[in-house]
Amino acid sequence: MSTNRLLYLPLGGAGEIGMNCYVYGYGPVGKERYIVVDLGVTFPDMDGTPGVDLIFADIAWLEERKDRIDAIYITHAHEDHVGAVGHLWPRLGAPIYARKFTSHLARLKFEEHGLDVKKVITVGAWPEQTKTGPFTVGFLPVSHSIPESSALIIDTPEGRIIHTGDFKVDRTPLVGEAFDDDLWADVSKDGVIALVCDSTNVFSPNAGRSEAEVVEPLTQLMKDLPGLVAATTFASNVARVKTLAEAGVKAGRSVVLMGRAMRRMVTAGIETGVITDFPTTLPPDKAGEVPRENLLLLTTGSQGERRAATAQLSRGKYLGMKLVEGDTVIFSSKTIPGNENSVSRIVNAFSEMGVDVVTDSDGLYHVSGHANRPDIAHVHNVVKPNLVIPMHGEHRHLRAHAKLAEDNGYKAIIAPNGTGVNLAGGKIKVVEFVETGRTYLDGSVQIGAMDGVVRDRIRMALNGLVVTTVIIEDNAPLGDCWCEIKGLPETGRSKAPLVDVLEEDLNQFLMRANKKTMVDDDKIEEEMRRIIRRSTQNEIGKKPEVQVVISRLSN
Amino acid sequence: MSTNRLLYLPLGGAGEIGMNCYVYGYGPVGKERYIVVDLGVTFPDMDGTPGVDLIFADIAWLEERKDRIDAIYITHAHEDHVGAVGHLWPRLGAPIYARKFTSHLARLKFEEHGLDVKKVITVGAWPEQTKTGPFTVGFLPVSHSIPESSALIIDTPEGRIIHTGDFKVDRTPLVGEAFDDDLWADVSKDGVIALVCDSTNVFSPNAGRSEAEVVEPLTQLMKDLPGLVAATTFASNVARVKTLAEAGVKAGRSVVLMGRAMRRMVTAGIETGVITDFPTTLPPDKAGEVPRENLLLLTTGSQGERRAATAQLSRGKYLGMKLVEGDTVIFSSKTIPGNENSVSRIVNAFSEMGVDVVTDSDGLYHVSGHANRPDIAHVHNVVKPNLVIPMHGEHRHLRAHAKLAEDNGYKAIIAPNGTGVNLAGGKIKVVEFVETGRTYLDGSVQIGAMDGVVRDRIRMALNGLVVTTVIIEDNAPLGDCWCEIKGLPETGRSKAPLVDVLEEDLNQFLMRANKKTMVDDDKIEEEMRRIIRRSTQNEIGKKPEVQVVISRLSN
Repeated sequence: MSTNRLLYLPLGGAGEIGMNCYVYGYGPVGKERYIVVDLGVTFPDMDGTPGVDLIFADIAWLEERKDRIDAIYITHAHEDHVGAVGHLWPRLGAPIYARKFTSHLARLKFEEHGLDVKKVITVGAWPEQTKTGPFTVGFLPVSHSIPESSALIIDTPEGRIIHTGDFKVDRTPLVGEAFDDDLWADVSKDGVIALVCDSTNVFSPNAGRSEAEVVEPLTQLMKDLPGLVAATTFASNVARVKTLAEAGVKAGRSVVLMGRAMRRMVTAGIETGVITDFPTTLPPDKAGEVPRENLLLLTTGSQGERRAATAQLSRGKYLGMKLVEGDTVIFSSKTIPGNENSVSRIVNAFSEMGVDVVTDSDGLYHVSGHANRPDIAHVHNVVKPNLVIPMHGEHRHLRAHAKLAEDNGYKAIIAPNGTGVNLAGGKIKVVEFVETGRTYLDGSVQIGAMDGVVRDRIRMALNGLVVTTVIIEDNAPLGDCWCEIKGLPETGRSKAPLVDVLEEDLNQFLMRANKKTMVDDDKIEEEMRRIIRRSTQNEIGKKPEVQVVISRLSN
Repeated sequence: MSTNRLLYLPLGGAGEIGMNCYVYGYGPVGKERYIVVDLGVTFPDMDGTPGVDLIFADIAWLEERKDRIDAIYITHAHEDHVGAVGHLWPRLGAPIYARKFTSHLARLKFEEHGLDVKKVITVGAWPEQTKTGPFTVGFLPVSHSIPESSALIIDTPEGRIIHTGDFKVDRTPLVGEAFDDDLWADVSKDGVIALVCDSTNVFSPNAGRSEAEVVEPLTQLMKDLPGLVAATTFASNVARVKTLAEAGVKAGRSVVLMGRAMRRMVTAGIETGVITDFPTTLPPDKAGEVPRENLLLLTTGSQGERRAATAQLSRGKYLGMKLVEGDTVIFSSKTIPGNENSVSRIVNAFSEMGVDVVTDSDGLYHVSGHANRPDIAHVHNVVKPNLVIPMHGEHRHLRAHAKLAEDNGYKAIIAPNGTGVNLAGGKIKVVEFVETGRTYLDGSVQIGAMDGVVRDRIRMALNGLVVTTVIIEDNAPLGDCWCEIKGLPETGRSKAPLVDVLEEDLNQFLMRANKKTMVDDDKIEEEMRRIIRRSTQNEIGKKPEVQVVISRLSN
C-alpha cells in the first residue's frame, strides 16, 4: 500500500475566487484513479481578456488521463462551480454527480450543448454515498447563497477528506439547509485527514450574519418606499429572491420577475421542490395594469452587467417598464471587486433619472454567502482535521487562511493551482507541479490563454493599428504602397494626414531599396514595420501595431 | 446691472471624481469675463479608454472665448486639479495663480512642456486677494491630503462665492493648515451667495478622522515588524509621507525614497518650506549597506500602478532592492474604486514571495482627505450660504449632496458638467447647456472622446480583426485575394485554418461577381466585409472587425 498516492491537485480555484476545479487521485504513481470536484468558470474583463466569453481552468492534464476519471462531483450550482460542464464535459466524459437542484441546472446546460443528460446523475444528501473508483463520496449539506450547496465527504483508502465547497455558517438560512454543527462533528469524529476549505471571506474579521437578518429590514423598506421598487440580487440566491418577493407582497406589491436568469432560477427552485411557497408573480406585460406603487420588479444584473434587466432599466424602457422620479432601486447584493465601475455607471444613470438607489453600503439589506474569518476557525475546530488545505481564494486568501489555521494549532499547506500534494501515509508532501493555466471560450472556440490571440487584441487596443499593402512586380514596387489606420489619430505633429506621412516615408524606402532587399519579403516587411513605427512615433507619439501585406505579382 | 450674468459653469468634475475644471463668468450675455478654477486630469482605463495616456475636460467652449479669460486659479496640486496645465494652457493663455507649493509643481509641468514659467504666479493665502477682471479671489487654507490646499473666496459684483476645492475638516493635519472654523465663519458672516462644495465622501456616514490619528498606529507597527518594511501612499500626501518616515526613524529604520514622484514631492515640500524637518534619507544605492530590519522604503504605486516602485518590487528587484519572506509592505492608502484588481495582483505577488501585506481594511493606517457626510453638513452650517452647489462627484454624489443640503434647510442645485447657472440677482436659473465632453491625450495628440479612434481600438479588442487584400485589373481579380487575422483563433468549426476558409469564400465571390459589382470598390468592399463576417461567425462564433484593401491596377 505504501506505493499508493492519495493526490490533491487543484487545477482552478486555488489562485483565484472562481473557476473551481479540483482533482483527487488514488493509486500507484501513473495509475491513479481520479475524481474531479467542480467544473466552474470565471468571467473575463476588458483589462486582461477583452472579447473573451468565458474562462475555464486548463484541463489538458486531466484530459490526458481521461480513461482514469471515474466521476465528476459538483458541490453546488453557482457558475464558478458548474458553469463549465457543458463546455468541458466532452473532453472528460465521466458521469456527473450532484444533488437535485444542481443537477437540474447542469442538465439544462447539457441540453444547451446537445449532450446526453443521462450523464448527469442526481444523488441524495448524506448519509447517501456514491462509490466511484477508490473514492466513496457523500454530499453533506451546508448553508450558502444557493440551495442544496454541499460539502463533500470523500472517503479514501487513507481516510476521510472533507471538501467544504463554498459555505457559510448560517443556522437560519430560510431556504435550504442550515449549518448543522452536530452533523459536522459527527462525520468528523473518527478523524479527518484533510479539510479542504473555502477561503473567500478570510479577510472579513467579524462572524457572518444569517440570511434571516435581512428579512425585517427589507420588509420595512418595501413598505416605506413610495413608488415602484426594483430589487436586484444574484438570481441564484433563491433564498434572497424569495425574501424580496415576500417583503414585496407584505408591502402590497405585485411581484414581477425580470431577466431570464431570474425566471430560470425561480422555476428551477419550484420544479425541484427547493422552494415550496413562492408568491404568485405577474408577467411583465401585465405590470402596466397595476399602480406603480404596488409593483416590485425583481431584476437580474446586480453586478452591473450591461445586458441584464437592471442595466436596461437604467437606460430606459425594458419589457415595457420605465422607472421615473420617486421610484427606487435596491441592490440586495455585494459588488464583487472589479465590478464597481459598471455598478456606479448604473447608479449614476438612475440618479440622472431622479430614481433613488439603496445599496448595501451599510450591510442592512445583504449578507454574504461565505464563512468569515471566525466562522472558518469555527469549522476547523468542529472538524479538527490533521491538515487544513485552503482553497477557493487568491494566493493572499490561501496564505491568510493557512496562517489562521496554524495560529489555532492546525497543520496547513498552501497548495496553489497545479500543486499536487500526496496525503498518503500521513506524510504531506508536494509531489507534482502540473502546468496549469486558463482556457478561454472565444466565440465558440476554446483557446489557450497563452496562444497570443488575446495578447494581439490587447496590443491593438493599446497601440492602434497601421495596415500597409504593397504590390511588387519584378522585384520593384508596382505603384505606391498604401496605408490605412485603425484606432489612431488622423493627424499629428506635422498636421498632414498620418497616412500621407507614412506612405511618403514607405515609398521613399521602396524606391531606394536595393535588389537584395526587394527579393526578400521578410526583409521588406521588417523594414516597413520599422519605418511605420518610427514615423508614427514621431507624428503622434505612439508605436502602433503593424500589419504589412506584400502582394507579389509573378509573370 | 440687471443684464449682467454671474455664471457658474462646470466643464469637468461635476459628473466624475477627477478632471476638475470650473468656469465663473460675469458680464452682459456674450461679453462675460471669465476665470477658470482648476485644470485637472482623470485617468484612462482599459474598459473605456484603452491606450489613452490622460483625460482632460473638453475646453473647446473656453478656447472660443480665450480673449475673455482673465485668470486660471489652481486650488491645490493634485493631478485632478493641476494635471492638465501643461497640456491645455497654450489653448487658454491666461495667467495661472496658485499658492507656493502648487505653483512650484505647476511650474515643473510648464518646464516639461517648454512653456513660460512666468505665467505661473505665486500668491499668498487669505487675506491676500487677487483682482482679475470682475473677480477678486483669495486662497482660504483648508485641510486636505496635500499641502497648501485652498478654498477660493470669489468676490463678485453680486456677492461672495466660496469654492471649497477638495477639503476635509481636520483640526490636526500635521503638515499644512488646520481647518479653521472661526476663519470660515468670519469670511462667511456677510453672506455667501453660493457654496460650491466637494462631494467626494458624501456617502461616508461618519465624521472623518484626523491625519494625527494614524501616527501612533503606524509608529507602533513599524516598531513591531521584524524585517524590512516598505510603505506606500500617494507621494503627494506629504503629511503621510512624513508620518511614515518619522515612524520609521523612531523604529530605528533608515528611510529610502523609491519612485520618482516620491522624491519629487518631498523635494517640493522642502524647497517650498512646507516641510521643515523631514528625516534624512538614504539613497537607494546605499540601502544594501544597512541591515534589512533597519530599513523603511517609501514607495510609489499605492494604486497598483504597473510601473511604480511597489509593483516593481512585487515582480522582483527594483533599484537593487528585493523583498523576501519576513518583510512587510504597508498600504497606507485607500484603493480607489476601479484599481482593486491592480492592487490585488500586487498583494498576491507579495503573498507568493512570503511577504506580508498590511492594508487599510481596518482603517488604522489611513484616513481620507475628503470631508465625510457630517463634515460637509458642518461646513454648510458654518458658511450658511444662500445656495449649495455640489461639485467634484459623480451624479449620484451631487444628488446625495444636494439632498443633504436641502434636508438641512439649504437651497441646492444639481449642476452637472455643461450646466451654466446664472447666480445674478438672487435668482438661480439654468441659462446654458454647453456641449461638454472629454479630450484624450493619445500619445502626443489631443483627440476628442467622440472621434471614434478609441472606439475602433475597443472594437478590435473585443472582436479581433481580419485584413483582406485584393488586386483588381481590368475589373477582374488578379490572382487570389489574401486574408490575415489578428486577435482571432486560427481554426474553428471546420478545423481548417480560418484564413483558408475566408479566402476560399472570398475568391468564389470575386470569380462570380458581375461587372456592375467589379467596377465599384464600395460594393466590392461591402460584399467582402459581409462574407468575412458571416464566415467567421460560422467558423468561430465571432463577427470580427474587417479591413478591406483593394488595389486597382491601371495601365
